[in-house]
Amino acid sequence: MLEQLKEEVYAANMELPAADLVKFTWGNVSGIDREKGLFVIKPSGVDYADLTPDAMVVVNLQGEIVEGELNPSSDTPTHVVLYNAFPDIGGIVHTHAPWSVAFAQAGIDIPVSGTTQADTFYGDIPVTKQLTTAEIDGAYEEETGNVIVQTFKDRQLDPNQMGAVLVNDHGPFTWGKTPHDAVYNAVVLEEVAKMTYHTLQLNPHNIRVPQHLLDKHFLRKHGAGAYYGQK
Amino acid sequence: MLEQLKEEVYAANMELPAADLVKFTWGNVSGIDREKGLFVIKPSGVDYADLTPDAMVVVNLQGEIVEGELNPSSDTPTHVVLYNAFPDIGGIVHTHAPWSVAFAQAGIDIPVSGTTQADTFYGDIPVTKQLTTAEIDGAYEEETGNVIVQTFKDRQLDPNQMGAVLVNDHGPFTWGKTPHDAVYNAVVLEEVAKMTYHTLQLNPHNIRVPQHLLDKHFLRKHGAGAYYGQK
Amino acid sequence: MLEQLKEEVYAANMELPAADLVKFTWGNVSGIDREKGLFVIKPSGVDYADLTPDAMVVVNLQGEIVEGELNPSSDTPTHVVLYNAFPDIGGIVHTHAPWSVAFAQAGIDIPVSGTTQADTFYGDIPVTKQLTTAEIDGAYEEETGNVIVQTFKDRQLDPNQMGAVLVNDHGPFTWGKTPHDAVYNAVVLEEVAKMTYHTLQLNPHNIRVPQHLLDKHFLRKHGAGAYYGQK
Amino acid sequence: MLEQLKEEVYAANMELPAADLVKFTWGNVSGIDREKGLFVIKPSGVDYADLTPDAMVVVNLQGEIVEGELNPSSDTPTHVVLYNAFPDIGGIVHTHAPWSVAFAQAGIDIPVSGTTQADTFYGDIPVTKQLTTAEIDGAYEEETGNVIVQTFKDRQLDPNQMGAVLVNDHGPFTWGKTPHDAVYNAVVLEEVAKMTYHTLQLNPHNIRVPQHLLDKHFLRKHGAGAYYGQK
Repeated sequence: MLEQLKEEVYAANMELPAADLVKFTWGNVSGIDREKGLFVIKPSGVDYADLTPDAMVVVNLQGEIVEGELNPSSDTPTHVVLYNAFPDIGGIVHTHAPWSVAFAQAGIDIPVSGTTQADTFYGDIPVTKQLTTAEIDGAYEEETGNVIVQTFKDRQLDPNQMGAVLVNDHGPFTWGKTPHDAVYNAVVLEEVAKMTYHTLQLNPHNIRVPQHLLDKHFLRKHGAGAYYGQK
Repeated sequence: MLEQLKEEVYAANMELPAADLVKFTWGNVSGIDREKGLFVIKPSGVDYADLTPDAMVVVNLQGEIVEGELNPSSDTPTHVVLYNAFPDIGGIVHTHAPWSVAFAQAGIDIPVSGTTQADTFYGDIPVTKQLTTAEIDGAYEEETGNVIVQTFKDRQLDPNQMGAVLVNDHGPFTWGKTPHDAVYNAVVLEEVAKMTYHTLQLNPHNIRVPQHLLDKHFLRKHGAGAYYGQK
Repeated sequence: MLEQLKEEVYAANMELPAADLVKFTWGNVSGIDREKGLFVIKPSGVDYADLTPDAMVVVNLQGEIVEGELNPSSDTPTHVVLYNAFPDIGGIVHTHAPWSVAFAQAGIDIPVSGTTQADTFYGDIPVTKQLTTAEIDGAYEEETGNVIVQTFKDRQLDPNQMGAVLVNDHGPFTWGKTPHDAVYNAVVLEEVAKMTYHTLQLNPHNIRVPQHLLDKHFLRKHGAGAYYGQK
Repeated sequence: MLEQLKEEVYAANMELPAADLVKFTWGNVSGIDREKGLFVIKPSGVDYADLTPDAMVVVNLQGEIVEGELNPSSDTPTHVVLYNAFPDIGGIVHTHAPWSVAFAQAGIDIPVSGTTQADTFYGDIPVTKQLTTAEIDGAYEEETGNVIVQTFKDRQLDPNQMGAVLVNDHGPFTWGKTPHDAVYNAVVLEEVAKMTYHTLQLNPHNIRVPQHLLDKHFLRKHGAGAYYGQK
């Protein structure tokens, strides 16, 4: 069942330790088959070295396990919310990558301070509000998804142009058209978090790029007028 | 004698350079057989490349060498104190890992600023008071153990929920149910020290997570209601 | 056509990931044949792992593609401007290396604070002014080259003695007598950006070296009186 | 001639890139035969990959080349001064390791802030005064040695207990009983520079360890009462 997607999600999961984004089991990737309404996700707490495509768990958009002998990632309810709310995304990544986490713990956005971020993310990377006590005590992982979606609504962000968020007190989630694209965004996020941390120490004022430069860089890589690469 | 434990302690020692936590011989791991009241520890000042399971030294809970041709780690008296005071722990690690040491040298706790720390440590990682001149001039390594134990008493910390401490002016000790668990805690400690250092530079105020989030994350991985992983 | 130069430019491009200066496809190297008035440059958006000497694109000094099946780097118009304005340079590099980018995003020069920088760069590494909206909306990549050239004119810098620049809000360009020399300068730039970032955090005042030390170090490696190495 | 010493100095030079202390050719190690009054040093500007024991240059304590086809390191006159002034040392290292350079460029000592430094260096790592214009324009590399020696005299430091110095605006020199020991000290210096940089950002006040702790740690590893390791 969904053998090709399992291979793809497995490969994307294995990119995380290769890109130095995770320690131990601190990360997960999922990928969705939109036609079938099913997604494939890493099992919970399994070492990357022991992972196989067959170990992946199949889950439906109500969060029910459809296939798999292992428990899915404990973050599965967050993935369910995001797939339901953001209909164009095909893959989701969660990590505890340290530079991204530093901003999440500080509770501040990553301001778009240069073309590196502008090439991939159309603006500041948003941090969510903190979860309430009720949200934490309730369906915590589902509420984590809800607070992400609410952040995008409140700030009128387009998830197709902003493939990353920092959950306050926690860490990053990224997404993209495919599981691999979501990993790509996780790598870029970590790199721009590192760059911009140092920029803020050098110069805490007025580091955000002008809107025209943001438009130029994001749109030369994305959308109808893109001219980067071999397209 | 204790061949299996020696293998286990040897393997845990070798995890330290693999995890980039030590330079030269700056670290040691021990593991205890509670039934026999004996523990196994790395010999002093031996390069990791030259280490073998047979080189491990067996010590009793009075700090006497029971077996072994080499001197045990100079930190052995600290291990003795910790094994006697914390009856549930099965392994101990000491390193000079640089982010952990930065906090130890600064003499400040690592505040629990996100879920990464909360998943493993139930609160702030404590730093001990400085040793007195008398303690330094006396049985220094034993007094190092005593000041750790005193810190846990004074601050009413449970060593089973807080598997790490920073010895002021010195560096980290961690422990766990097994030698491997103690190494795991040393890796997590170093990672959260790095993350939280950067968080404090971005935002020095109010970065500690709410109690409910700490409870949620620590308890979903530890204790009766745990639901992380394949348990 | 230009087979040897293609090999040289290919090899210099492959030095970028080896020196940890690029992620994904975020960098490019070109090299010029001054007699023929043609330069060779990396194709746009191609993974380093898939690159071959044959994939390199040949461009003339009007920016027209002379040979090659792939699109050249989107930064090609910047290279054209620099080769035309700086007649002695033989190779150009662009990266998004993170320490260099941190200064570019902060919009501040890298002050010459020690002999490491003075050995290679004759003074502060300059940051350009920000591009205007008109420049961004117009021939953006060409204007990026123009703003670099204008910076060197305004500040009376000699491109043969200062082989690096930080484009504001963006990142570094470096150049040298050969493609390999340009990569060398990119590596040195990243290293001195890292060193001097930390120096500025330790001591923000008066860190620039005296002129006599700058002269001594730059000139013992460069120019008529050089006595470093096996010359 | 001095074949064994050449092997030893060659091996110590190769430790520098392995320990990530140098880029390109930015470092050199020498070692001395005190009976013969000759030392062996790396040739100038030769890549580590191309180095062989035979390429080492033999120099006497007047700084004259006694054997070798290549130019010795441009820092050779500094080594000459140090070997003459510090009669017990057997090896010298110079690098541009980035954390050490950050302090050298900032012109501040590395305060002894923990046991990691105290285990190897008996106090703060000193930074020299800046060289005068006359010193720079004169016999620059020799004057670099002189300013190191003057720093040790002025501050009444014992080179056998303080095997490192930071040359202002430049970078570190370290030494020890053997070339390998000098490299060991260079590695420790870089590690404590990194640790203490971060400590100073966390807590700029009162981070120096008490004298008793410094005495305890330095003396348990060095001198008559040492009890660390297998001695």
